[in-house]
Amino acid sequence: MPNDTRTESYVVGVDFGTLSGRALVVRVSDGAELGTATCDYPHGVVDTALPGTGEKLPPEWALQVPTDYVHVLRTAVPEAVRRSGVDAADVIGIATDFTACTVLPTLEDGTPLCETADFASDPHAYVKLWRHHAAQGQADRINALAAERDEPWLGRYGGFISSEWEFAKALQLLEEAPEVYAATARWVELADWIVWRLCGEYVRNACTAGYKGIFQEGEYPSRDFLAELNPGFADFVEDKLAHRIGQLGEAAGRLTAEASEWTGLPEGIAVAVGNVDAHVSAAAAQAVEPGQMVAIMGTSTCHVMNGAVLREVPGMCGVVDGGIVPGLWGYEAGQSGVGDIFGWFVDGSVPQEYAVRADERGLSVHEYLTGLAAEQPIGGHGLVALDWHSGNRSVLVDHELSGLMVGQTLATRPEDTYRALLEATAFGTRVIVETFAEAGVPVTEFIIAGGLLRNPLLMQIYADVLDLPLSVVTSDQGPALGSAIHAAVAAGAYPDIRKAAGAMGGRRVAAYRPVPANVAAYDELFAEYRTLHDYFGRGANPVMRTLKAIRRRAHA
Amino acid sequence: MPNDTRTESYVVGVDFGTLSGRALVVRVSDGAELGTATCDYPHGVVDTALPGTGEKLPPEWALQVPTDYVHVLRTAVPEAVRRSGVDAADVIGIATDFTACTVLPTLEDGTPLCETADFASDPHAYVKLWRHHAAQGQADRINALAAERDEPWLGRYGGFISSEWEFAKALQLLEEAPEVYAATARWVELADWIVWRLCGEYVRNACTAGYKGIFQEGEYPSRDFLAELNPGFADFVEDKLAHRIGQLGEAAGRLTAEASEWTGLPEGIAVAVGNVDAHVSAAAAQAVEPGQMVAIMGTSTCHVMNGAVLREVPGMCGVVDGGIVPGLWGYEAGQSGVGDIFGWFVDGSVPQEYAVRADERGLSVHEYLTGLAAEQPIGGHGLVALDWHSGNRSVLVDHELSGLMVGQTLATRPEDTYRALLEATAFGTRVIVETFAEAGVPVTEFIIAGGLLRNPLLMQIYADVLDLPLSVVTSDQGPALGSAIHAAVAAGAYPDIRKAAGAMGGRRVAAYRPVPANVAAYDELFAEYRTLHDYFGRGANPVMRTLKAIRRRAHA
Repeated sequence: MPNDTRTESYVVGVDFGTLSGRALVVRVSDGAELGTATCDYPHGVVDTALPGTGEKLPPEWALQVPTDYVHVLRTAVPEAVRRSGVDAADVIGIATDFTACTVLPTLEDGTPLCETADFASDPHAYVKLWRHHAAQGQADRINALAAERDEPWLGRYGGFISSEWEFAKALQLLEEAPEVYAATARWVELADWIVWRLCGEYVRNACTAGYKGIFQEGEYPSRDFLAELNPGFADFVEDKLAHRIGQLGEAAGRLTAEASEWTGLPEGIAVAVGNVDAHVSAAAAQAVEPGQMVAIMGTSTCHVMNGAVLREVPGMCGVVDGGIVPGLWGYEAGQSGVGDIFGWFVDGSVPQEYAVRADERGLSVHEYLTGLAAEQPIGGHGLVALDWHSGNRSVLVDHELSGLMVGQTLATRPEDTYRALLEATAFGTRVIVETFAEAGVPVTEFIIAGGLLRNPLLMQIYADVLDLPLSVVTSDQGPALGSAIHAAVAAGAYPDIRKAAGAMGGRRVAAYRPVPANVAAYDELFAEYRTLHDYFGRGANPVMRTLKAIRRRAHA
Repeated sequence: MPNDTRTESYVVGVDFGTLSGRALVVRVSDGAELGTATCDYPHGVVDTALPGTGEKLPPEWALQVPTDYVHVLRTAVPEAVRRSGVDAADVIGIATDFTACTVLPTLEDGTPLCETADFASDPHAYVKLWRHHAAQGQADRINALAAERDEPWLGRYGGFISSEWEFAKALQLLEEAPEVYAATARWVELADWIVWRLCGEYVRNACTAGYKGIFQEGEYPSRDFLAELNPGFADFVEDKLAHRIGQLGEAAGRLTAEASEWTGLPEGIAVAVGNVDAHVSAAAAQAVEPGQMVAIMGTSTCHVMNGAVLREVPGMCGVVDGGIVPGLWGYEAGQSGVGDIFGWFVDGSVPQEYAVRADERGLSVHEYLTGLAAEQPIGGHGLVALDWHSGNRSVLVDHELSGLMVGQTLATRPEDTYRALLEATAFGTRVIVETFAEAGVPVTEFIIAGGLLRNPLLMQIYADVLDLPLSVVTSDQGPALGSAIHAAVAAGAYPDIRKAAGAMGGRRVAAYRPVPANVAAYDELFAEYRTLHDYFGRGANPVMRTLKAIRRRAHA
């Protein structure tokens, strides 16, 4: 319960996504969501041409413009407060979560280099969005050298540092734009930059520092390691990266007068340490105890889970001390393609007559196919698929893998293939869950968040494939609610995240239960998936890698 | 040249297909096609309910009604003559070809049992069409016993006797309808039954007797073998099957007065020995020399080739002395799914916008996709498929195999998948061609017949994948022209099929030539196909078989 029960108090959570930001006003006492507003980023994702100059960007680039985030603070926050009917004076704290690793070079005071006269026309001076994938060469070198040197931190990341993360992107900056690198005083996660903007304090949050910044047990990769990568990179940590770490749920500072003016919130209220959209959702789902795995299921799936012990799980994205909740080891894993595989199939592989019939019934094509697929007995389609259309970022960690469908006949219909794709993503999840269990970090409760929880067939398939009851998060806005929970902790309304999550978060426990006959049927299909997974994923037949190489050559 | 050059003479070829019959009037001197007419079978394929009684048929059944074939003689033949402008009195011969193995129980005089009062309402008394697949159990027992006994004829059929063929269907008749079996005086291929109807003589043609009737070196399977299958089957050959064999191109007899009345052709003209639609096409394509392989490409592909020597080729459908041309060994192979895979994809996997855009351009969806696919560099789609959507009936001979697609990503478009399916069938053909070469029967010229030769992209892909120049048959109506050529030989206008084919058949030699760069690019993709072919096709991973078993169980 809040410290002061005489009058209700409120918090604001702001979720900065890939295309837009969402503000949510939440009652501190019970987590009631009272008002929300979203605001699209004016520049969206900059992946073809730089604003202003129109300079064409190379493939794999994805930038953003930092003023867009401030725009969200100035528009979505006051609008959400207005819609909530709450008196802004009763708001006691604000917290934010962000995509990650989304990173920016700044001056010493946090000014983005792209806002300086010298660098406004240099693409390297802008925000590099999480899905900027042009630093793969640097990531490959980091991984090769770390493996060669047997760096102790490599195992904390399933053996692979991603091209999306802070070091790979910084090394790309150094090597492709040394003048921008030289002018960079701070290499800042946007999760921390937005907090800096709100409270005037630069605090690196434990979550991104750990998962994206290779910060483990108080240390970053060594000067020696960095020098061997590139002599000019030797002092990167000391000069541009290392800074005070803040634990999740702590206050980074107090709302400045300027930010108070932007948001309409009271000057001086608590501003929480930054956080990441996936990880912050755990609190909204009340998944703050060891063994509770939250799957945030959308175009891709991110899995986060607390553990009491430190284990190295093959192919996990990372394990970080206090990465989700202070005092526990935060584990992260992921599936790079889930909802976007279903979307790709619906957009490109479903004939006109299905679109017409769905329309006649007032259904989306997804809903219509789901209905048809739900009528089938398990295994009735005769198919097994591998869900690697966007590569595999868990267990196998190989972006050169691709999709596979086996068993099609002239009798195979779109709903058959659709169901096989739904099942394939569930099998992919099961591989992750089994890998965690084998590594000594068993999953005891599986909780779904994200847009895909609206598909009941998909949920039942997951329950049956995993042979686990499925809980589902109650809120439609997990990340923003999760941020609001952190704001309440930072404001001192609750002593810690666990207590706050208990009062403000929500989940329906065991909303979907495994059906024993279905579990047995899926065991049989999963055995086939597993055989294909290992055959194509572990090098016995490198055809997927070969086909991608041939494809690149053909288009070169 | 015809024996009598003062006045032109003509022949009629009649091609009995699965759904209709086609008559073609051809000039003997040069093969000019002067008039044609088709006639749909009034009863089509009977695969749901028996005409008359309405009795529901079990799955896998496919029957026909013999009066439908006579209907073709009475309508299509006179109409084709009328359209040709030829005087019927100048027609010197008629020949027919038929689907096979399509087979019928008759009385001693050829009367179909289904036309007798006792059996008109028994499905087993009707024509069993080639695609009647309800005798699989019998075929499995024939194959197991033949392998166990090391029967010398088994290798002549690639090690597998099909459920479609004479013995399996006859054994099914015995075991499921012993009273019909007992009343059966003759078990007659329709290729021979229609000739019997035309000339009053029952002659078993060397082609179906060999390929479908296990007639090798003058012998059928032994009484001993048949008795071990089923004691009641011991005398099947002697009682119901064995009969005079006629060589292709011979006259079986002369047109009867009754058949003259049906067709409007002169009584007493030559009626050729029966033949099969695929095999008869070789003459139309001038493919009468060893090493010339004809691929009749439609929903499926049938390959026929003459050889000077007898070899046992793994997975071939059969090798028969005089099976295509008297005096040579006739080899047959096949791909069970080709055009029907492309059709399945277009019908079920292409989105509305493609249908709209094709329509705007006045193209079929096939043509539109082909155009888009043709713009791609080889390997640009990043895909490899296995073309086993209807199982594999060559080399592997396993109907439990199924389709596979590997390499799909979120960037994969319908034209990519379409092209991968075209290529997969070409790779399947290459496996056959290589298997023949390895067995000592090299393919020296590859000739295309059938409807798919109208797709120039497909033709170029085949030339490049096979690294062989592709010839194409000139006629649009290969089987009917092939029959007409046999009619001319039977009528004595030419001394043999080779001479007649040279004058009356036609092919464009090397209409498509392999492009060296394409050949190299496809070699690389074919290596991937071959690896997948062997992995999934030769038992290392029986997932396709398992999925079919699971599917059957799920639907049971």
